Amino acid sequence: MNLNQPLLTDLYQLTMAQGYWECGKIDTEACFHMYFRDYPFKGGYAVACGMSQLAELVDGFTFSEDDLAYLGSIPAPGGGKLFKPEFLDYLRNFKLSVDIDAVVEGEIVFPYEPLVRVKGPIMDCQLLETALLNCVNFETLIATKAARVCLAAEAPVAEFGLRRAQGAAGGVWASRASVVGGCSSTSNVLAGKMFNLPVSGTHAHSWVMSFPDELTAFRAYAEAFPTNCVLLVDTYDVVQGVKNAITVGLEMRQRGQKLTGIRIDSGDLSWLAKMARAMLDEAGLTDCGIVLSNDLDEYTIHSIREEGAQVMSWGVGTKLATAYEQPSLGGVYKLSATKPAGSEEWIDHVKISESSAKLTTPGVLNVRRYYFEDGHIAGDMVFDTNASVNEGEIIIDPMDGLRRKNLSGKQYRELLVPLARNGKTVLADEHRDAMAARQRAQEGLATLDESQKRTLNPHTYPVGLDKDLFERRRDLVARLRGISR
Amino acid sequence: MNLNQPLLTDLYQLTMAQGYWECGKIDTEACFHMYFRDYPFKGGYAVACGMSQLAELVDGFTFSEDDLAYLGSIPAPGGGKLFKPEFLDYLRNFKLSVDIDAVVEGEIVFPYEPLVRVKGPIMDCQLLETALLNCVNFETLIATKAARVCLAAEAPVAEFGLRRAQGAAGGVWASRASVVGGCSSTSNVLAGKMFNLPVSGTHAHSWVMSFPDELTAFRAYAEAFPTNCVLLVDTYDVVQGVKNAITVGLEMRQRGQKLTGIRIDSGDLSWLAKMARAMLDEAGLTDCGIVLSNDLDEYTIHSIREEGAQVMSWGVGTKLATAYEQPSLGGVYKLSATKPAGSEEWIDHVKISESSAKLTTPGVLNVRRYYFEDGHIAGDMVFDTNASVNEGEIIIDPMDGLRRKNLSGKQYRELLVPLARNGKTVLADEHRDAMAARQRAQEGLATLDESQKRTLNPHTYPVGLDKDLFERRRDLVARLRGISR
Repeated sequence: MNLNQPLLTDLYQLTMAQGYWECGKIDTEACFHMYFRDYPFKGGYAVACGMSQLAELVDGFTFSEDDLAYLGSIPAPGGGKLFKPEFLDYLRNFKLSVDIDAVVEGEIVFPYEPLVRVKGPIMDCQLLETALLNCVNFETLIATKAARVCLAAEAPVAEFGLRRAQGAAGGVWASRASVVGGCSSTSNVLAGKMFNLPVSGTHAHSWVMSFPDELTAFRAYAEAFPTNCVLLVDTYDVVQGVKNAITVGLEMRQRGQKLTGIRIDSGDLSWLAKMARAMLDEAGLTDCGIVLSNDLDEYTIHSIREEGAQVMSWGVGTKLATAYEQPSLGGVYKLSATKPAGSEEWIDHVKISESSAKLTTPGVLNVRRYYFEDGHIAGDMVFDTNASVNEGEIIIDPMDGLRRKNLSGKQYRELLVPLARNGKTVLADEHRDAMAARQRAQEGLATLDESQKRTLNPHTYPVGLDKDLFERRRDLVARLRGISR
Repeated sequence: MNLNQPLLTDLYQLTMAQGYWECGKIDTEACFHMYFRDYPFKGGYAVACGMSQLAELVDGFTFSEDDLAYLGSIPAPGGGKLFKPEFLDYLRNFKLSVDIDAVVEGEIVFPYEPLVRVKGPIMDCQLLETALLNCVNFETLIATKAARVCLAAEAPVAEFGLRRAQGAAGGVWASRASVVGGCSSTSNVLAGKMFNLPVSGTHAHSWVMSFPDELTAFRAYAEAFPTNCVLLVDTYDVVQGVKNAITVGLEMRQRGQKLTGIRIDSGDLSWLAKMARAMLDEAGLTDCGIVLSNDLDEYTIHSIREEGAQVMSWGVGTKLATAYEQPSLGGVYKLSATKPAGSEEWIDHVKISESSAKLTTPGVLNVRRYYFEDGHIAGDMVFDTNASVNEGEIIIDPMDGLRRKNLSGKQYRELLVPLARNGKTVLADEHRDAMAARQRAQEGLATLDESQKRTLNPHTYPVGLDKDLFERRRDLVARLRGISR
């Protein structure tokens, strides 16, 4: 079943939609932005992802008769049905007419700047919210985790988390996002097929166990896959496993073939990798690499490398595919402006709530990314596309009015690009392609200072509101709280 | 795109399959068991789930021409193609012929006992592994989390985590598993439609922000949904929000209607709930309930209730739908026995590896659950279906040979029931239905001692191997390690 469909949403989006329809507000235009507030994994950056799936969602956004029949059957808690037949008739002919702008996949992004902007009839904006958040939150989270893991590894990383991923689609999109973030391949065959990703894999412990002994199993595997032979050596005992692999490696060399590597999947990986390296070298198999796996993430990889293990490549599963350390990005989707039918002017909106960190930003926004002359990034400015940017090009920290930075005179570019116009996607092929996004992420990471890429306690990158926008927001909050300035 | 298909697997399952095919081992029978080793969330039980999706997977297990073309295109790392055309021809006509036995959804389960047993040609068993682990691991994890949350709440819990779930299917199956584990409803409309689950939801902050003021927004919502009116009071200021809700609640009462409740979604929920309760009571709206949401889990719910807040129902999102605290269940799928073509006898297999906790259990297994006379559960025995159980009905802790328990004389039942025979599913409708599984979980939880349901540091339930099986395993490990006893 294709899950990219209009019912992939929270019920309250549909009850609100009926509410807007009943109040005659379906022609009110609105603007919503999706953004996150905290750096994932306490890191210094995020890698945007999920826009390709969002485009799929927009392309397939039609209520089927089946959907309408289901909606019509939902009971209202107080009796009767929740949805009115006339509203369901309205949904029958419903077509999205929003404009969507978004950063492209692979773009490096930061807290408090919009990743996606949706503008159009308020009901359309609302009907997209849940699924949009679902894909952008999840894929950005995983692409970011992958970037962290790959920066720590400085060697090819294969993603193989499908067996512990959160559901089939969780696994499939996690594999794609992992490659966008920097992984060299995935074990996930379906993801490979769907998104044209490199796939990799050799054998499991069960292969070894199904033969009378390990050496026979290794020989059989080398026979079957002479050009893709990585032997898993820890089914019974690693020392004996490496010895058996060496036997097979030498036999392969006799036949003009090559044992590509051995894999260790349990025990103290650092210690075992060093021991195995010495054994392989001693036997003359210096070109046979070592692959490590088993509950790895950027922290364990960093520590294993620090101890001097020489590793050809890494297999990373659960902790990448589920972002185990922080399995959700808290991205939100907030109303920032409305334009009543017939009006030409956008009205600002903010939500002030009980916690200051949840204060939203009004307007129809975009982001300028400024660059130093050496190509490194200097600061991001969130600005209102319907107002001019303050002359000094000053940005102000959205959480701290006294933290400011002057960006004038620097080159910049704008981050949001059109994803849909009037409900139809306009995303170019190179903006849907996973391998192109991977390349973009690599280039983007190269524009960060090393201090911003540190795994622990990185340097914070300056992202601020255009000074005029900051002041407009401050005045609006004061007015809503009844404070005169 | 339907993701329940044969390519939803790790590449190494397919390379091993080709290997088995090349070695002439496709007629070797094998037996694999899926089980987990550690209690999720450091709790005292798990709620099994995922068997319905597993049945879907088995039902749809056919390689399409498209799949075969894709597999045929995968390059081998050393040059050429990874898969041989003859093997792809073999896959073209491939039909599963495994027998699968599994616990039913909603069954209470414990570490080290098989949740699923797959028996049949080794290649079939292997081709199912990854997807089987994916669905059973994830759904069991979420159903268990939901049970914990609902036990803490002792009031209806609505699941609404879709926006932060891991992918669309993550969200859809998380919603289903949440209801199996005890939730009263989900906000996820697609999950409601697919699995016939109760759905619930009212309005968001954006509804309030899209009107000139909060009171107008509340009145419009009450007008549109007089029988399903829960007003979200924290868009600008909770005290004022409650006052506005009271105004609307009194107006509704005038019209013979009822304000069902108010929802608070930010700030100190415990303090605000008590304040709101007092304000509502003071205004005479004693029948208007309070709904709390915002980053809740069993721990925060427990603490809010302990402080005396009176809560009508709870909304739980991210921390449930992603099992935030522990986003993956480490379930494994291990070969335990093989039977070469033509032979009648099963040969035991174990994997001993570097860590004792990863030691597997040989045989073709099932589980007996023993009961005390009062209906509470007394202990679970993992036994080999091809051997008789030890006469004393003694179980031994798989990790500690000196922890034993005698279960003789007690009533018992066996946990694994047929899910597929010769590759065709035989799961009864009541074993696929989510609401029936929910009922089963409620009944199962009632057979646990209170001490086993404690959120923190619960009492450990005795699960052991049949004494004879334990000794057989011990002897096999000794033999593999070259130790004479």
